[in-house]
Amino acid sequence: MMLEQYLDIQPEVAAALANNQAVVALESTIISHGMPYPRNVDTALEVEQAIRDQGAVPATIAIIEGRLKVGLDEAQIRHLGQAGQAVAKVSRRDIPFVVAAKKDGATTVAATMILAAMAGIKVFATGGIGGVHRGAQETFDISADLQELAHTDVAVVCAGAKSILDLGLTREYLETQGVPVVGYQTDSLPAFYTRESEHSIDYRLDTPEQIASALKAKWALGLNGGVVVTNPIPEQYAMAPELISEAIETALKEAEEQGIAGKASTPFLLARVCELTGGNSLDSNIQLVLNNARLGAQIAASYCK
Amino acid sequence: MMLEQYLDIQPEVAAALANNQAVVALESTIISHGMPYPRNVDTALEVEQAIRDQGAVPATIAIIEGRLKVGLDEAQIRHLGQAGQAVAKVSRRDIPFVVAAKKDGATTVAATMILAAMAGIKVFATGGIGGVHRGAQETFDISADLQELAHTDVAVVCAGAKSILDLGLTREYLETQGVPVVGYQTDSLPAFYTRESEHSIDYRLDTPEQIASALKAKWALGLNGGVVVTNPIPEQYAMAPELISEAIETALKEAEEQGIAGKASTPFLLARVCELTGGNSLDSNIQLVLNNARLGAQIAASYCK
Amino acid sequence: MMLEQYLDIQPEVAAALANNQAVVALESTIISHGMPYPRNVDTALEVEQAIRDQGAVPATIAIIEGRLKVGLDEAQIRHLGQAGQAVAKVSRRDIPFVVAAKKDGATTVAATMILAAMAGIKVFATGGIGGVHRGAQETFDISADLQELAHTDVAVVCAGAKSILDLGLTREYLETQGVPVVGYQTDSLPAFYTRESEHSIDYRLDTPEQIASALKAKWALGLNGGVVVTNPIPEQYAMAPELISEAIETALKEAEEQGIAGKASTPFLLARVCELTGGNSLDSNIQLVLNNARLGAQIAASYCK
Ligand SMILES: [Mn+2]
Ligand SMILES: [Mn+2]
Ligand SMILES: [Mn+2]
Repeated sequence: MMLEQYLDIQPEVAAALANNQAVVALESTIISHGMPYPRNVDTALEVEQAIRDQGAVPATIAIIEGRLKVGLDEAQIRHLGQAGQAVAKVSRRDIPFVVAAKKDGATTVAATMILAAMAGIKVFATGGIGGVHRGAQETFDISADLQELAHTDVAVVCAGAKSILDLGLTREYLETQGVPVVGYQTDSLPAFYTRESEHSIDYRLDTPEQIASALKAKWALGLNGGVVVTNPIPEQYAMAPELISEAIETALKEAEEQGIAGKASTPFLLARVCELTGGNSLDSNIQLVLNNARLGAQIAASYCK
Repeated sequence: MMLEQYLDIQPEVAAALANNQAVVALESTIISHGMPYPRNVDTALEVEQAIRDQGAVPATIAIIEGRLKVGLDEAQIRHLGQAGQAVAKVSRRDIPFVVAAKKDGATTVAATMILAAMAGIKVFATGGIGGVHRGAQETFDISADLQELAHTDVAVVCAGAKSILDLGLTREYLETQGVPVVGYQTDSLPAFYTRESEHSIDYRLDTPEQIASALKAKWALGLNGGVVVTNPIPEQYAMAPELISEAIETALKEAEEQGIAGKASTPFLLARVCELTGGNSLDSNIQLVLNNARLGAQIAASYCK
Repeated sequence: MMLEQYLDIQPEVAAALANNQAVVALESTIISHGMPYPRNVDTALEVEQAIRDQGAVPATIAIIEGRLKVGLDEAQIRHLGQAGQAVAKVSRRDIPFVVAAKKDGATTVAATMILAAMAGIKVFATGGIGGVHRGAQETFDISADLQELAHTDVAVVCAGAKSILDLGLTREYLETQGVPVVGYQTDSLPAFYTRESEHSIDYRLDTPEQIASALKAKWALGLNGGVVVTNPIPEQYAMAPELISEAIETALKEAEEQGIAGKASTPFLLARVCELTGGNSLDSNIQLVLNNARLGAQIAASYCK
């Protein structure tokens, strides 16, 4: 590999990694595509600060003018936040094309895991992961995040997967691929805006130390692949499971009535569920990311001990 | 990798491997979860003896107090057999958690393959492998054994897969993943209690030498992954295919009538098929494992030449 | 790996690789199974010449008497062409068995990628790739070519996939696995006999240099796996999309009426679509392969710069 030809690790991040200090990776699709400007930029900076407050170093990941960036400065974060949807959304498949064309790219969960692993970062905090879409039995619409979790050695701290996905099928897919799902202080699979779902997790672990110790065992044994660490949204920001299920049912019915299917389905459902559950979901989204950043920093710190 | 930090290879097994002598791996879920006490312990010891009788060294695999064990002594086998269902069933996903918590674990086909490969053992004998479950088109319920076969360099000698699975879909899945299915002295895919099924195998090979020679070519070429070596149950212990199909049909109908679906389905079907086909299936199960152990030892011996 | 024990690289090919000169791999199933004798042999030689005309070295790949051959001479090509269907069709799964039995084998897309990668060849030109079969939601019939594309570092230049496959599901499967689909001078996914389909590609690139530069970035970054480079059939040989869709509809209806399903389905559909669209499809097939060979040579040349 001639990585250095393509990869820039921010000096602060490189120094932390060299000194075995805690580093937490952060994705950039959440900045460009996940939230409106300027809340996206403010949030990205707050999330970095939350990681620093725990004594760890944040490394926001993106592609800037074809360079793989592990660690962005404020100007770069602002650039991605202002460009928004105009920035290419980059998954595994897309990386070489955005690099070769010297373009900007916002990294998804899959691509962020890849760049984190290239830099040697073991813990990555985000909002939610992709999964198996409802109806994937017919459409085969399954996020590339799941294959990345099967192969790349990074722990992804998240609030679960959004319940417009099929959480049961997502669990089965991860089981077949040998990817563990940890519940942090919970026995139930969190579903992003809700703290609980009808699905279980594989292992409930109640401290960052326990999680770090399982990660160490996994990778020391050469058991390649990621771990999903699910962290329920803080109680005061959580929605009631019935509220969200009802909104999803309504949105699904509307999609069927309006003949919305295939590729158009997911953005429609996400937008309708957001509208139907009231305007406060952005606040919840921000709070769960901050919550995951803090836990990620604690796990990273424990992993370095 | 810092394997030695986690892995104990029994001295006899380590010596055999160092001297290029035949070693056959054995799983432990069959001991703890597959048979009632004390038949499970007696069988585990008989299977080890059957391997010794062929001039090879047995290595029963499990996790004991968080240590990966390749090769168990009689006391350890008895411990797992007595503990039974109380011992955690460990697949790829579970290994780091059981290790980190310093617990006991009985290894499934997938986890046994992993530990065998860590130790350098190339041949593993068991009863049957996991596969694609009936109805997986809807449920995505596919055993992690199949992904392990896609990636880990171990030949698994078995009597096929139980016919409560969907054998046709299992064949397709293995084909997509590039995993060969060998029939030992048979053109038809054995289905555990029956010598034949309506499904074919990829290659009929009639001697352990032919099998060993294909394994050598596969791994010398860097073609990673396992091989399924199917060995029909000895004739005198076999059930008639009609008998077992009928029992499965009945069990499936009962499951539907009683509303048993999802996770609860497989244990229900296994138990009902066992009852419906009479009480002698445990004897058949033991005999097919012994039969596979003998063939495994012969393949391992030929592989070492 | 003890590759040299099994692998013969033709001296001309080995010299070109050692001197960083352009080499293009070619498959052999297209010779033995894809066209009638003697057109198959004539075409194979013409395709090699088309690659030479672009200044690159062709390497037709097959297994001869158990030896992996990268680069065949005319006598060997003629041998495969005359033997036709009598030669074993070899995918990943089959390689070790054909090698161990010292038999001949014609390599599919998957197996050709594997042997090309063993030899260090980065570009492979063929007609079409395998994919997800229509009805795979029920049958799980998915070509092993797709898993090979997920893992093996070779760019496959092709005219897309035949539209008797489910192109939409094939696109989804590749997306999940992180495999990019490039359109050469096209925005639409070519479908073998037609220049367009209703499906999109991931990246339109208009020069061999752009494609080579993305391939370099991909593999320099350690992003393992292949790239599908789709190259529309030359206009004068293309069929109208409606013509081929109609023929497929008719063939699918006939298959249902005649109760043809499962394994028998694909050969039946291929044959009927060929008959229904008139006898000139062989000419089209030859022309698209030549077209892909030329593009492959140009990409390989640019990759070596
Ligand atoms: Mn998708
Ligand atoms: Mn399962
Ligand atoms: Mn197939």
